[in-house]
Amino acid sequence: MKVDGTHYRSIWFNEVTNDVGIIDQRWLPSEFRIATLKTRDQFATAIRDMWVRGAPLIGATAAYGVAMEMAADSSDQALDHVWHTLNETRPTAINLRWALDRCRDHLVPLAPDARPEAALQLAHEIAEEDVETNRMLGVHGLPLIRDILARQPQGEPVRVLTHCNAGWLATVDWGTATSPIYHAAEASIDIYVYADETRPRNQGGITAWELGSHGVPHAYIVDNAGGHLMQHGMVDLVIVGTDRTAANGDNNIPFYVALPSSTIDWSVHDGVSEIPIEERPVEEVTRVQGLGQDGRIATIGVTPPFSDISNPAFDVTPGRLITGLITERGICDASTDGLAGLFPERVI
Amino acid sequence: MKVDGTHYRSIWFNEVTNDVGIIDQRWLPSEFRIATLKTRDQFATAIRDMWVRGAPLIGATAAYGVAMEMAADSSDQALDHVWHTLNETRPTAINLRWALDRCRDHLVPLAPDARPEAALQLAHEIAEEDVETNRMLGVHGLPLIRDILARQPQGEPVRVLTHCNAGWLATVDWGTATSPIYHAAEASIDIYVYADETRPRNQGGITAWELGSHGVPHAYIVDNAGGHLMQHGMVDLVIVGTDRTAANGDNNIPFYVALPSSTIDWSVHDGVSEIPIEERPVEEVTRVQGLGQDGRIATIGVTPPFSDISNPAFDVTPGRLITGLITERGICDASTDGLAGLFPERVI
Repeated sequence: MKVDGTHYRSIWFNEVTNDVGIIDQRWLPSEFRIATLKTRDQFATAIRDMWVRGAPLIGATAAYGVAMEMAADSSDQALDHVWHTLNETRPTAINLRWALDRCRDHLVPLAPDARPEAALQLAHEIAEEDVETNRMLGVHGLPLIRDILARQPQGEPVRVLTHCNAGWLATVDWGTATSPIYHAAEASIDIYVYADETRPRNQGGITAWELGSHGVPHAYIVDNAGGHLMQHGMVDLVIVGTDRTAANGDNNIPFYVALPSSTIDWSVHDGVSEIPIEERPVEEVTRVQGLGQDGRIATIGVTPPFSDISNPAFDVTPGRLITGLITERGICDASTDGLAGLFPERVI
Repeated sequence: MKVDGTHYRSIWFNEVTNDVGIIDQRWLPSEFRIATLKTRDQFATAIRDMWVRGAPLIGATAAYGVAMEMAADSSDQALDHVWHTLNETRPTAINLRWALDRCRDHLVPLAPDARPEAALQLAHEIAEEDVETNRMLGVHGLPLIRDILARQPQGEPVRVLTHCNAGWLATVDWGTATSPIYHAAEASIDIYVYADETRPRNQGGITAWELGSHGVPHAYIVDNAGGHLMQHGMVDLVIVGTDRTAANGDNNIPFYVALPSSTIDWSVHDGVSEIPIEERPVEEVTRVQGLGQDGRIATIGVTPPFSDISNPAFDVTPGRLITGLITERGICDASTDGLAGLFPERVI
């Protein structure tokens, strides 16, 4: 999407310099910085230290990481090495393993001298598929917004609440939860977005940054404020990505989860007991990063020195609280039957 | 309660210097600072700028503010002036108006030269009543913790989740939600507390600070983490104060609200439509205060410069999500009938 009028993707291949550009998201929303990745270790660092984040973008980054490694060394050993190095960077990102396996399966049968070109083509394919998938989430989600607009009083925007960053910066482009929002904005629908802050990493700041940079009116709110807004009729629709539990069942507000089917784990039938929850570093809770009064990025401590810190970084949303799932094939119930109807070939 | 082994209250009268000491809570949990209040404007600043916060403590502070003003000028005009000055400091603190009215009603009939002594006695009374009320919340709440302990596997602590700071620093002593916790700690019950951070003002840091300073084991978590902990059986009991909506209805965990009856607004019958919600300054959301890397208190900005900010600072908990109310007279259902049973003389 756009940053001050210029179209960007979150990752791109530079044909002139033969390396990969990314938006280094560690400094958002305070600073917009570009970084260049070329070596296996640079890609590993970028994924592990969250220069890039978001399941779809992590997958695409891993694929470009394999491609860059193959350009440097296309041996079986190098392929194995890059697979292992990148696979260890984030434990719960399902797209990471999915992209790496796809690269390995595609490249192993090829002669080493055919691998560099094939790996780069595959990385492009994975990135383009992601863009197309997310575009389709918006195509399917847009009618939900149009339906609300049709019932809205004259001059009232459609007000959408979202959590975390399921935006274009978590994918290659469009985003998941934000794709219907950007499609609405492109269709000149009057829309207003509430972005939850999403402590501890404040990814809501990234969502607010990308919405503002693209020109979408929005407000930043703390995680505790959404319930009040919903109780008072200030939210028409909730759209989130797939990393978040939200107990909105009480407010009679449609609650949708937007997801590419690549993030569905078909082997899991009970989320609460089966999905491992990543316990992330305590520093994410104890410290907050922002812009200091001297205009430079600064980190401050916000917790007492003697407190234990617990940082379960994800949680599981009970399906009964979800109105529907927005996928690239359409919208379905948040149930086994609903998913089976859209993806019959995938049911285990 | 205790700070490093020494017993403190959150407000006290100093007979030697004839002024009032408070803990200046703006610097917690980073720094423990004491402040002295004497003039009407100092009291107004301390309440308005949240050197002291929490409905019961605000009430006691206002009463001491009236007493200090009467010591300086006990005329009708001065009494009226201090009432108005302090009443304007916080719009939604029900205890503020309650304490000021109580002082005025008590002092107006007295001759001016009798007012200084009477005002100080009344401030002491209000403070002592608060301590006693909160002590009784603990007496009534402690059996809830003992009941869970009796069913707990050997060696397992009773795990209590709380939100915001309904601790002794929000009252004169004991706190509301924390009073059962401190009573359990004094009874040598093995207890473990999860303290929600409570953005935007991070009052959970104050709760964690007071628990740790008193020696109660606890963890600091972000507001998004509580759902996960409850889903996974890591919380046995929730006790909060009265400024917070929590949608915990789904986790079959007992959820209690601890409150002195002075915070009940008997004229309100539908919370969502009737309780005004204070929209507080945007800077509370855009900026976070903490300890900089140089060891000094610093403030950083965490939001994009172009985002709207919405900061509804309270919300309303539907009574059906609450297991019970812990009051100074005992425990009752969170319903009109429940409250009428304990406070028959108050029902409108």
